[in-house]
Order: sequence, then structure tokens, then C-alpha cells
Amino acid sequence: MTTDSWADTGGGFGIDNLPYGIFSRPGELPRVGAAIGGRVLDLAAMSEAGLVEDRRCFASGSLNAFMVAGRPAWDANRARLVELLTDETYRDRVEPHLIPVSDVELRRPFEVADYVDFYSSEHHARNTGRIFRPRDETLPSNWKRLPVAYHGRAGTVFPSGTPIIRPSGQRRTPGEPEPTFGPSLRLDFEAEVGFVVGVPSAAGRGVPTGSFRDHVFGFVLLNDWSARDLQAWESRPLGPFLGKSFATSISSWVVPVAALEPARVSPPVQDPAPLPYLRCDERWGLDLRLEVLINDQVVSRPRFASMYWTSPQQLAHATVNGATLRTGDLFGSGTVSGPTRDQRGCMLELSWDGREPLDLPDGTKRTFLEDGDTVTVRAQAPGASGSPITLSEVTGTIHPASQP
Amino acid sequence: MTTDSWADTGGGFGIDNLPYGIFSRPGELPRVGAAIGGRVLDLAAMSEAGLVEDRRCFASGSLNAFMVAGRPAWDANRARLVELLTDETYRDRVEPHLIPVSDVELRRPFEVADYVDFYSSEHHARNTGRIFRPRDETLPSNWKRLPVAYHGRAGTVFPSGTPIIRPSGQRRTPGEPEPTFGPSLRLDFEAEVGFVVGVPSAAGRGVPTGSFRDHVFGFVLLNDWSARDLQAWESRPLGPFLGKSFATSISSWVVPVAALEPARVSPPVQDPAPLPYLRCDERWGLDLRLEVLINDQVVSRPRFASMYWTSPQQLAHATVNGATLRTGDLFGSGTVSGPTRDQRGCMLELSWDGREPLDLPDGTKRTFLEDGDTVTVRAQAPGASGSPITLSEVTGTIHPASQP
Repeated sequence: MTTDSWADTGGGFGIDNLPYGIFSRPGELPRVGAAIGGRVLDLAAMSEAGLVEDRRCFASGSLNAFMVAGRPAWDANRARLVELLTDETYRDRVEPHLIPVSDVELRRPFEVADYVDFYSSEHHARNTGRIFRPRDETLPSNWKRLPVAYHGRAGTVFPSGTPIIRPSGQRRTPGEPEPTFGPSLRLDFEAEVGFVVGVPSAAGRGVPTGSFRDHVFGFVLLNDWSARDLQAWESRPLGPFLGKSFATSISSWVVPVAALEPARVSPPVQDPAPLPYLRCDERWGLDLRLEVLINDQVVSRPRFASMYWTSPQQLAHATVNGATLRTGDLFGSGTVSGPTRDQRGCMLELSWDGREPLDLPDGTKRTFLEDGDTVTVRAQAPGASGSPITLSEVTGTIHPASQP
Repeated sequence: MTTDSWADTGGGFGIDNLPYGIFSRPGELPRVGAAIGGRVLDLAAMSEAGLVEDRRCFASGSLNAFMVAGRPAWDANRARLVELLTDETYRDRVEPHLIPVSDVELRRPFEVADYVDFYSSEHHARNTGRIFRPRDETLPSNWKRLPVAYHGRAGTVFPSGTPIIRPSGQRRTPGEPEPTFGPSLRLDFEAEVGFVVGVPSAAGRGVPTGSFRDHVFGFVLLNDWSARDLQAWESRPLGPFLGKSFATSISSWVVPVAALEPARVSPPVQDPAPLPYLRCDERWGLDLRLEVLINDQVVSRPRFASMYWTSPQQLAHATVNGATLRTGDLFGSGTVSGPTRDQRGCMLELSWDGREPLDLPDGTKRTFLEDGDTVTVRAQAPGASGSPITLSEVTGTIHPASQP
């Protein structure tokens, strides 16, 4: 797919990307669009004009109706968009449906059914183990046998740009005899990559690693905001709850799985060899280069290719017990962290639980996030044309805790 | 509310109960009904006939549209149903809309938004602590400070009667060097009580204990099916995942909060005193007497009044970090277990992790559940008329694991 487009395709939003999202203009209903350069292609209008297959789902306020249509529909629509945006003869008919992104409001792209968050970076797992459980083995004994995960709160998954209100809750500093209540003092981000399910699965049947593309619609960037003090105090024995459930942010644009084919690389060697249901014949590491920014200053450059467990392994694991998938099921990778400090994907690791404050280029220091801080995660991946494609950023600004 | 009804009100389904559910007859669309005696009052037809306030929500296939209407609407509708079912002059107009429950199929009563499961029985927490974490303190240090909870899988909450397929997954018996894969060998039930949210809450604002009734629509019985071998191996450090996510069953009928007013009792004394946000001026223990049956034989009689944390405390905790509530949010109490063996709410406790097999009246023994076993949880509560009201049973039969 190295064909040139007649449209402006800058910023990593060329015809080898074409992510889907939900947009609206003032006074108009939200509907489905695709990003191309700095513009949004109005798919509802295109469908009405007979330029793409007539799908009422494009007039919908979420991608769910299109996501459930399945891979043949996704592939056909993508091929058609490429045709329309490269063939000059369509230009006059398509141009009227291209809207500058500055003129639209972007919404949450899909309705989240269930939200599951993994813990699949070995570097992150080792670091948090050292910080939270210094007396135990660094890596839990199950960690290299299965992709550890938990369910998060689907109702608090927000689109990029949503303000993040600092959560309050119980926390007890080690050494303190009593827990106290108040705004989190250790508010953190987690830079992650997520994928979203389009096609449901049948009850009692898992989704083998080889069927990943038949179910998964696309990828987003994800920030699993975390209150470390709440989390540390509450997590025993059933895992994180309020420390995570106040907010999770996702990108406004969903990158189709097909757009990431050129990004596929071999994942790290898995030793011990996983059980048969977790084996994957295809290489499904993804060469996504993330950048984390605090107040527009890059603080970390995690690489998604370093993740120990791949997305198809995560999906096969999550369904091997017969749990069904629904359209809109969202799976987060877990914090993406690399071996060096400048590749760590959260403040907990970057400041080593606050013990080694991080120096920002603007001269300030951070242990955890402060009110007013804006955290942005962005990423690029190799594109089919040779130049990188952009995964649209996920960003959020910390607002002070609500008064009780 | 001691008025007599002209309708047959047997089985604990009198006019002081009037639970809501979703039913259908062959060839007809599912719609909202209320249970009275052995019959279902067709509220969609009643609304069409002008007998209850015209609500399109009664023609819906889930209770969500009625649940979001809020407490004034719930109270008004309940009062109207009592009027219609007690005043003889309405009898001829109402009778045509009463359908024998044997003629209908009951559906899942509401669409589940998020599903949270607590761990609020002190006896259950102490027992599982002794079994799973024998080297640690019996009760985690946070347990009496906050109601411990985790998010479960909303997409696998099923109505009573849905077959439960034995899940497969990874498990490692302590002492074994390697995990193996296969059908769970320690399949269990958990007898619980759940409540469901009708009215959403605002972002960043918690729901104080005193506002419980403004948000919560009603209660169900709940069985949080659990694969103990999968759960034990996977849970470190992020809590249960596949050991729980294959299935959760709920009653077909939702008992309105108002129907349980006469069941309210003082909960156990809480020592240490909870933090202010968890204090509750009203007494919110609930005198629900549960019975657990395996293949129609009673194996346990847990009492919900023994729960350490109350429902309003659970809701206040779950939202104190600003997490929003959505219509359909389901909260499970956690396994209801009492101090004696015949009050334990799961096989893990009843057979002490399989070490003390349970003798059933039919002469068989159980450590965990076998294929073909039917587990039923039912309950009664004091009703306003003096005789008990019934919480409709939640039941499920174990089917063999799917072939991979």
C-alpha cells in the first residue's frame, strides 16, 4: 500500500493509517469518521452519498455497530477508502466530506463492554515487584506461565482530553498505625496500548491465538490512571479496585489491526515455553514506539515491542475458560516499560516510588503527578508506505480533588 | 402494608414483595412483569390498558429503562400495583394481565453495566485466609478498615437457570513443579446477595451511605461461580480473573429496596469504628435467610444479617474515589458465611478445600462440584404483612467442560 493519496496525509495520518473515530460538529449528531492528514472523512455523509457501502452504522454515535460487522466488512471498507483517497477522479466527490479536525469535537470512539487490564511487561512487573513486595521473589511464580490480568471499571473509560479529577480514598503509609482518608498523594499514569473487540465469541469456546484478527477491530493508546497509595492499601488479597477505578483514558482514534501489519515483529523469547493454548505461530510483537510527556516534556520512550506477552496470547488466555467476548471489550496491555529508566511507563517506576524524584526539563521535579499536570502518551509505528504512522495521543490534565 | 390481595399471593410472592423481572411468551417480545403468587403481572399490557402510568419502559426487554426513572417513579408504581391488586373493583380489569409463571420464560432482568464483587463476610474472609494464606494473618490488615472488593466480568452475568459449563484453565497444585491445563478440578459456588443501581451518579462525587436508596433499585440472589484451582494459581498479585470470569448467575426477579424495609436489622458491631465516609446512621443489616441446595438437598443456611459490611457502606466505598455509577451496575456482597459449618456459603469452606468431604443426604460425598450437580440458592426475608417474602432462587447446573 504505497500508493499516493491526493489528500494531505501529514502527521502520520496517511492512507496506510486511516483510524476510525466518533466526531461531531456543533449542533450535529455524533457519527463515524476516519482520520486522514489533519482532516476527518465523514463516513456517514459518504455513505449517504453512495460513496461507501451503505451502512447505517456510520450514522451511529459509537463504532460498536461497525465493529460487530466483522473482518470482511472492515477490510472492504478500508480498501474502498484507499481507492477513494488515491484515485483523482473521486476527488471532487470526496472533498466536501473532509472536515478539518479543528472544526470537530472527538468523542469516546466506542462503548466499552468489559475492560480487562494485563500486566505483560516483564520490566514493569519486576520493578513493581521490587517496590511493592520487596520481601517476595521479584516475579510471581505464575508470571511467565500466563499473562496476569484483572478486570477494571468499564464505566470510567474516558476519551482523550477528559479532565482527570484527583481521587480521594483510604491510604496507609507503611509504618503508620491507622489509615487516613484524603486526596491521593501518589497519583500516577500508566502508559499502555489497548485493543478492542469487534466480533463476539461463543459461550464456552475460547479464541485461539490464530483467530485474533477475526475478533479484534483495532488498537488505541491507553492511560490507566492509578492512585498508588489507595492501591497499595486496598489490594490485598483481591487486587486493585479504587486505586484504578476512577479513570482510564483512551485515544480518540482506533487504528485498525490491518494498519499495524507492517509493525509486527518477533516478541521476546518466552522461556519456559508457554502451554499449547498460549502458543502463537505468527509473530505478534508490535513495534510501537511510545512517548510519554508531562506538560509537553518527554519523560519516557517505552517500546511496545519489548512486551513479554503478545495481544493474541492475552486474548486466548482471557477466553480459555469459556468467558464470552462482547463487542466493545477493551483489553489494556499493562504498563509498557523497558529495561532503562528512560523507558519506564509510570511515575512509580520513574521516581522509584518517590524515592528518586524525576527532573523535568523545565527545572521542576516530580515524584508523582501534581494538580495541573498534563500527561500525554503518543506513539508511532512503521507504516506500509515506509514512513511511520501515528497512533493518536491520549492526554489528560489533573484537576484538584472534589470537595467532599 | 398488611392489606389483603384478591390475587393468589402464595410462595412468599405477596403484595409486600412484588419483584420485577423480564418475561416472554412464545412468539412475543420480552417485557417487564411483576411477580404475584404464581403469576406474572404483564406491566407492558397494564400500561397499554391505562392501568399503570404510561411507561414505554415496560415494553422493554430489560429493566434498565425503568430503573433509571428513580425512586419517586419506583415508589409510585409500587403503590399503584398494591392498589390494583387489593381493590376488588380492579379485579376484572387486572386478571386478564396475570399470566401463570409456568407459561412464560424468564430472562436476565437487567443489562449489567459494571459488576463489582465484595468480600464482606468476616467468617468467609477468615476461612479463606486460613485455607489460601496459612502463613499470613487470618484477616488482611485492611479488612476491617474498608470493604475489600474487585471488578468481575459483566459480560458473563447470566440469569438463573443458565447452564454452567465447567471452565478449563491453568492450575498448579502446590508441590507440583509445573502448571497443567485442563478442566477445573475444584469448581465451586458462592452464595451471595447482590444489589443493582438504577440512578447514575455524577463524576467525581461519591454516593454517601445516606443516599443508598436514591440510587439502588433492588436486590437479587447471586452465585459467583468460582474455579478454585484456577483462582489460586492466577491471583498473585492482581486478584482473581479466569477463576471467576466464566459465569455469575443472578435471580430472575429483582426485589425492590422498599420490599426489604421490614428486613432491616442492626449489622454486627464494627470495631475499629470506620472512617467517617463509611459511617451509616441507619441500620442496614438485612435479615435474609439463605439456603443453599445441591441437587435439592439443603447443605447450608447462611444468614445475610451476619455480614460485616452493609450494602450502603459498600456503595459509599466503591464511589468515594469519584468513580461514577451507571444504571445496571451490579454489586455482589461476597460469599455469605456464618460462624458454623452449616452456614458456610461455598464448597471451599464446606469441604475445607476438599480435605473434609461433605456428606449429602443422598449418601454421596462432595469436595467440589461434579458435572450434573445443580446448585440453588434461595432466601426468605421478613415481609411487611408478617409472613416472609421470598427472594427468587438462583440456580444452575454444571455441564461438562467443552472439548477444545
